[in-house]
Amino acid sequence: MSERVFINDVGPRDGLQNQPRILQPAQRLGLIESLLDAGLKHIEAGAFVSPKAVPAMAGAAELFAALPDRDDVTFTALIPNMKGYELATAAGARSVCMVLYASEGMAQANVRMSRAEADAAGAAIVERARQEGVRVTSTVSVAFECPFDGPADPGLVADMVARFADLGSDEVCVADTIGAANPVQVRRLMGALVDAHGAERLSCHFHDTRAMGVANVFAAVEAGIRKFDASIGRLGGCPFAPGASGNVATEDVNMMLSQAGFDTGIDARKLQVAARVAEELTGNAPGGRARAWLERNLEVAA
Amino acid sequence: MSERVFINDVGPRDGLQNQPRILQPAQRLGLIESLLDAGLKHIEAGAFVSPKAVPAMAGAAELFAALPDRDDVTFTALIPNMKGYELATAAGARSVCMVLYASEGMAQANVRMSRAEADAAGAAIVERARQEGVRVTSTVSVAFECPFDGPADPGLVADMVARFADLGSDEVCVADTIGAANPVQVRRLMGALVDAHGAERLSCHFHDTRAMGVANVFAAVEAGIRKFDASIGRLGGCPFAPGASGNVATEDVNMMLSQAGFDTGIDARKLQVAARVAEELTGNAPGGRARAWLERNLEVAA
Repeated sequence: MSERVFINDVGPRDGLQNQPRILQPAQRLGLIESLLDAGLKHIEAGAFVSPKAVPAMAGAAELFAALPDRDDVTFTALIPNMKGYELATAAGARSVCMVLYASEGMAQANVRMSRAEADAAGAAIVERARQEGVRVTSTVSVAFECPFDGPADPGLVADMVARFADLGSDEVCVADTIGAANPVQVRRLMGALVDAHGAERLSCHFHDTRAMGVANVFAAVEAGIRKFDASIGRLGGCPFAPGASGNVATEDVNMMLSQAGFDTGIDARKLQVAARVAEELTGNAPGGRARAWLERNLEVAA
Repeated sequence: MSERVFINDVGPRDGLQNQPRILQPAQRLGLIESLLDAGLKHIEAGAFVSPKAVPAMAGAAELFAALPDRDDVTFTALIPNMKGYELATAAGARSVCMVLYASEGMAQANVRMSRAEADAAGAAIVERARQEGVRVTSTVSVAFECPFDGPADPGLVADMVARFADLGSDEVCVADTIGAANPVQVRRLMGALVDAHGAERLSCHFHDTRAMGVANVFAAVEAGIRKFDASIGRLGGCPFAPGASGNVATEDVNMMLSQAGFDTGIDARKLQVAARVAEELTGNAPGGRARAWLERNLEVAA
């Protein structure tokens, strides 16, 4: 029996939030349904953020209310703060993800807090989620490099992971938010974190900006990590930075892991169909780096 | 001091041989000069094959005669057989690369020999090259998967590597000719080969068809390999298989290795200029997977 690796598709959230074309909740639900059809069991379905700040995520409550009733699937809501937690859980979300910052620059830019203030706000969310039986992921963003402050301090990242694991987070996700990490760095950091905490509650989030996304997933797999964020159709990136790449594509990660002998529980052909859905909806989903090969070999109709 | 890793740019040979646009020797020399300008010290400059069978490689003797006199650079000639060896050395080549087959299907398709016959022909070339002081690389092609016969037998590959290392090849290159290898497989095979022979004379050759090229380079680096084939501009692939990818891009490999702390001796900005040269000459060089990021960050003029 092959070992299981889990992919959490963040396309409906991280992938869509910067798209020039705003999708309605019903359209985002269509994308989510295509992912469910392909076998995904973990989906970041939306974000409870200000619709003024992030118009692409407007109608998150409507979307969560319309999600299918699937006990076997974890639909996660991204939340920026306690108000987001309240909105998400009021809308029925049973799994939330909140963001911490491994740099001052990113904390200030994203939430106008110091790093320590963001940590304190995150700790309060973890505590409340535990009391209320809500699944909670603590994501350490810019864990390898910050666009403002440069390379991250691995010791700080390790301290943050330890603190939020100790607080009782169901999952602590180490995120290469801007796609700057290299696989040697990933192998080293994730190896140390797995040694300290085990792999059970750890996950990784990679972007493919510098085309090292698949290599970084492999490096983390070697370190023992068995859960990854990825984005259908390589959705993501900033529409104002031409050529900027999104999250590592679910299709590429799934193919590499499957070929390497892991069980992802995903139907590769149906996953290409979901990538087509992402492309049709957004007009801006480049697909996995191996798209040409996958479409030819899986005979996905053009 | 950072550890050195060597990249052998095979763009002028493997990259160009299937291009729809045939380049003249002087144009191919222009591409080679742009690679030298970027700091490449190993370049597969051409092939001494039948110009009827491979028109893109016609004029190899003229090209080799015109190569700059650089003691610090290894210009390699691909040779299909002893006649190719004679033509190459007569044209002044001091380094040759010949191809072995890890499957019957590929041996028959490429050279109309059995696998064993191709091994015998290769052994004769190694012997003669040694006698004549010519540097010789023995490449084990389809070492992971054959398009005709399916997955390769790692035991057979290990035997072939051992035999051609023992015969005195200056280098034995393990080639994923069709871009089918996954990094777990690469880590395992190359780890065993480095354990048996050391890394000094081993190298790897990856294609990027399934977008695992960079991950496979990293896997081989972890196994101890310190020399890689790659192709400027991700040149290569078959023009008759739309979307088929070429060799892993020199730009992507160089970036990953540099960011991971290795010394490649290559100037990344000048390498992007060389990729532009490849694109202008062929009209068909997609560039590295990270091209957008590289061009933006290295400020390569559009």
